Amino acid sequence: MGTKPRVSPKKCQDHTVTFLPFDVKVVIPSNTNLLDALRKTTLPIHASCGGKGTCGDCVVQIIKGTCHSKASASLPQKILQQGYVLACQVNVEDNLTVKLPEFEELSIKSSIDSHFLETNREILSGSSDIDPPIKKLVLTLPSSTLEDNYSDFKMLEFEIKKRLNINTLDCEYSVLKNLAHSIRENERKVSVILLNIEGTWTVIEVRPYSSKHGIYGVACDIGTTTVALHLVDLKNGKIVSSASSINQQIKCGEDIISRISYAQKTERLQELHDLIILTINNLLDKAYQSARISPPDVYYLSVAGNTTMVHLFLKLDPRYIRESPYVPTVNRAPVILSRDLGLKMNTEGRVHCAPSVGSYVGGDILAGLLCSPIVKQSQKVSMFIDIGTNGELVLGNKDWLMSCACSAGPAFEGGGIRCGMPAMSGAIEAIRLDERGKIDYKVIDSGKPKGLCGSGLIDLLAELFIHGYVDRSGKFNKKKIKDKLIETDLGEGFVIEKGSMSFWGRDLVITENDIANLIRTKGAVFSACSLLLKNAGLTFDQVDSFYIAGGFGQNLAIENAIRIGMLPDLERDKFQYLGNTSLIGAYLILLSERNKDLVNALERMMTYLELNTEPGYFNEYTGALFLPHTERELFPSVERLVNLK
Amino acid sequence: MGTKPRVSPKKCQDHTVTFLPFDVKVVIPSNTNLLDALRKTTLPIHASCGGKGTCGDCVVQIIKGTCHSKASASLPQKILQQGYVLACQVNVEDNLTVKLPEFEELSIKSSIDSHFLETNREILSGSSDIDPPIKKLVLTLPSSTLEDNYSDFKMLEFEIKKRLNINTLDCEYSVLKNLAHSIRENERKVSVILLNIEGTWTVIEVRPYSSKHGIYGVACDIGTTTVALHLVDLKNGKIVSSASSINQQIKCGEDIISRISYAQKTERLQELHDLIILTINNLLDKAYQSARISPPDVYYLSVAGNTTMVHLFLKLDPRYIRESPYVPTVNRAPVILSRDLGLKMNTEGRVHCAPSVGSYVGGDILAGLLCSPIVKQSQKVSMFIDIGTNGELVLGNKDWLMSCACSAGPAFEGGGIRCGMPAMSGAIEAIRLDERGKIDYKVIDSGKPKGLCGSGLIDLLAELFIHGYVDRSGKFNKKKIKDKLIETDLGEGFVIEKGSMSFWGRDLVITENDIANLIRTKGAVFSACSLLLKNAGLTFDQVDSFYIAGGFGQNLAIENAIRIGMLPDLERDKFQYLGNTSLIGAYLILLSERNKDLVNALERMMTYLELNTEPGYFNEYTGALFLPHTERELFPSVERLVNLK
Repeated sequence: MGTKPRVSPKKCQDHTVTFLPFDVKVVIPSNTNLLDALRKTTLPIHASCGGKGTCGDCVVQIIKGTCHSKASASLPQKILQQGYVLACQVNVEDNLTVKLPEFEELSIKSSIDSHFLETNREILSGSSDIDPPIKKLVLTLPSSTLEDNYSDFKMLEFEIKKRLNINTLDCEYSVLKNLAHSIRENERKVSVILLNIEGTWTVIEVRPYSSKHGIYGVACDIGTTTVALHLVDLKNGKIVSSASSINQQIKCGEDIISRISYAQKTERLQELHDLIILTINNLLDKAYQSARISPPDVYYLSVAGNTTMVHLFLKLDPRYIRESPYVPTVNRAPVILSRDLGLKMNTEGRVHCAPSVGSYVGGDILAGLLCSPIVKQSQKVSMFIDIGTNGELVLGNKDWLMSCACSAGPAFEGGGIRCGMPAMSGAIEAIRLDERGKIDYKVIDSGKPKGLCGSGLIDLLAELFIHGYVDRSGKFNKKKIKDKLIETDLGEGFVIEKGSMSFWGRDLVITENDIANLIRTKGAVFSACSLLLKNAGLTFDQVDSFYIAGGFGQNLAIENAIRIGMLPDLERDKFQYLGNTSLIGAYLILLSERNKDLVNALERMMTYLELNTEPGYFNEYTGALFLPHTERELFPSVERLVNLK
Repeated sequence: MGTKPRVSPKKCQDHTVTFLPFDVKVVIPSNTNLLDALRKTTLPIHASCGGKGTCGDCVVQIIKGTCHSKASASLPQKILQQGYVLACQVNVEDNLTVKLPEFEELSIKSSIDSHFLETNREILSGSSDIDPPIKKLVLTLPSSTLEDNYSDFKMLEFEIKKRLNINTLDCEYSVLKNLAHSIRENERKVSVILLNIEGTWTVIEVRPYSSKHGIYGVACDIGTTTVALHLVDLKNGKIVSSASSINQQIKCGEDIISRISYAQKTERLQELHDLIILTINNLLDKAYQSARISPPDVYYLSVAGNTTMVHLFLKLDPRYIRESPYVPTVNRAPVILSRDLGLKMNTEGRVHCAPSVGSYVGGDILAGLLCSPIVKQSQKVSMFIDIGTNGELVLGNKDWLMSCACSAGPAFEGGGIRCGMPAMSGAIEAIRLDERGKIDYKVIDSGKPKGLCGSGLIDLLAELFIHGYVDRSGKFNKKKIKDKLIETDLGEGFVIEKGSMSFWGRDLVITENDIANLIRTKGAVFSACSLLLKNAGLTFDQVDSFYIAGGFGQNLAIENAIRIGMLPDLERDKFQYLGNTSLIGAYLILLSERNKDLVNALERMMTYLELNTEPGYFNEYTGALFLPHTERELFPSVERLVNLK
């Protein structure tokens, strides 16, 4: 008898690194640098110091697996203990699960509810009875006899028609499959789920009656950067849980145009589609878990998003949105089966997307208009301004509506700004400088700051300008704030908070580059407002109200938005910040068929102004690239203040 | 270095035997008898001699694999050469593919067309324009401009509405998915497929225009024993090919009741469902091949079948059809996606099932009524009699309709009769005896006879009775035909043809047992006619016309059907044999939405009489179990003839 050979697997070992929340996996040889592993993915992580361990940009959290961070890591001890490391300082020697903390769940404030009530009482007035597209009936069916041996479905149909007082009733094939048993299991007592599509009711489910069986719907805003949803009890319209996160498509491009470019190849359209479905399914999971609800009880998803996001959600090629004459495949998509999209809902669930006006004014805007009184007013004229990664504007009243879009860029959602971040836990949402340059700020959920969200950035820019720390063109007044500037790899930067006081242990800094980005964004918004009004033959002071929507954060300081020249210098009480109107609009559509009809009517009545082909656009835009504007007389109150200082 | 061990696989070997056309597989040890292998399946093959090689019942054809038939096989040499063997005489020593020749494809005679034209000119009159639920439009869409940059779908919608002169248009989600490319691939020229459901048109497909792209529909009769279909060009209503076969469910039970029993377990309902889908898909394949058409060009399937067959086709539990108070799940199923049933058609294809009146009067009858003038007549009263495995009767006119059903049994389709077979190639379809007992017969497609189909059996029984070879109770008059009788394992039998002259080389024989079966069937039909009339307060001579439908074969001899007492003894010109009305009815529904509406109206107006609970039923039935009837005065012309002989 011989001896068995001893197999010694001393081969070059590979490790798998999984990056959350995207669930992106890479397989790399042992001892690869974690930042290099990250670079193999398309995840939007940059290390501005080039991997020297100094900038702190590549901070990640180790969720699973063992690793040793090099001693040179510049993270505070307390943060290290929580599993945070700088990716550039880690060599991978194990399978790792790594979380990219910048992309962790964004919180939707419950204050949306109060916002909602505040701004929508008028819309909802007279409709304390909600009227969702899904209804549940509990019926006890009469027994058949030899004389009246109606089919099971005829018995059901008769009772439903009687209860709803309707003449026509459709039925899904799936209902029939188990109907005989569903009727007989609990002594002919059944729960019936009915779907209303344009006035026609369809039976989509019959179950043996059980008191545990609820009916829920979901309102979802698909933003280019963030996705947010509410899980809603359709019995009473109550929001039972909410969830939001980054749109996982972000790794394929930060704005609409780059997503469309990315989708040019068929497989990549599939990839973008899969990523948004994954994002939504993850959010549904979270919402279900937190409300202890199971997917089969969820029958309807009301979606609002811009035209490109809705195209990617429905897997429609968005290519022609970008090519002249800029046509989408569809503005008003039919109601779709949720199973056709692979969504975690009841298999007979339905999906409705708010209609769009065209390629650049989407369902997010039309849904959002439901949240403002603009479409109720008759003589007054109002303006609705939604600033996300793209900016969209609507002008008019209940008799006429005119809209346009501008490429605002993601600056106010934290994109392209070194210290920027979405309006989530740890973001500075408000900031103030005193005369001596001392900085006071407010952090979402308090604690050490991680970065600045839109409202914080607007505050910061306004304060820097008003105090003369930056000039009208956005350059630092070095004499005045010499001691506040430090050298960075992208030039001088103004220190908002020192590393020792910040969450990540690195300085929170804004550079002239960042300021230029912010100015381009605010300039795009203001010049679009201006052109839209000109095209309507109106001036700013003829506008009665301005409704501002977007993901700036909870407390957009209107005063500061005027000071930087984003909004016009008018009486402050003309402005109202509405929050995430796309999400609230999707919620309103979910609650009531009348709201759905209203949105469809808005789609038909709205005209669209293409800014790119407007002759005056370039002049308007370049004029707005100053603080507050080249034409100082447009901002008298700001000028008074600046001259006062 | 050692020597490799020689692996010698001398284990007990298994063989796989595949039985066609059912594609049923069994794995058996080498040397198993082929008849025993057959018995392991549920295929309806019996060997009345018990496997001695004498009865010839177990004849099969070897399609693939080698086998040696024992020398004792009683098949003619010529038949043996064609690969036919007696299963009981073969021991399996190879993997075999075996065809059960009794179940090979049934032929539908092209004469159905002339039948159809003859009987339906009235129904179709004034409708030379067909009006199918599927329409194709060829459109060239205008180009979008910057000023009118309508979405692709809006452009399409506008053109369709203009062309069809309609206000509402629905759209399937799948259409949108490739719309942008379909429009642009062939310079904005597209083929559009539209579906009409209850007056609302839905776009179900848009392709770049190609002249090769046709639109086809299928009419299908799902019988308990046989399934038949026509492939129809929906541009002109022309039947381009036809196919028919045994219903593969037959291995799970020969009649409706045994199928329902079989389906009691869930997996078996699935099995029955799969078998009918397989049967239809095989027929579709044949029809497509013969017409050189591909599945994506086929958009609609119009089905007619009895209530149980439709339930199994739709995978609905048929259990309560059989249990008092005999309720089906549904009478009028919604139009269903063909992909939900796994049918080989366009993935957006639709399936319509003719509605049923109740558990025992199905869509086959309602569709069949379209083929008779009964529903057009106002004062006259007619009777429609459809005899398949079940018998269904309808009495009335365009103002009122009354129906009932009886368990006729499959005798007239060849079931339960030793020499019986469906009306396919090789069946004796007409037979005559002369005074000296000499037999003259006609074989479908000529050649040596394989057995007798329904019309042949009716002829045979009538001739035997009229010539006094069998008495009124169906017993042989042994004195008169002593020389024609031989001994069989089931008692004495009358020889129709000797083995040397028959296709299978075995005697074609009818026994008293077979005759009793035939008498039960004809008795059930006559007593049902009789009771239905009594319930309507009418007598036989008040009925103006009798329309006979069923799978007897092409030439049912009305005279002989009266002589055996199946049909009443009235003027012969009152009777008309219509053929397979279920299939023609499905075809008429496919051709025209008006026919669909008419069938739906028939469903609503028809009342159903439950014979089982009728007090007089048993008496009526037992009275009819004689030739022609216990009450001789009911059949005066038959009595005159009998007395004459």
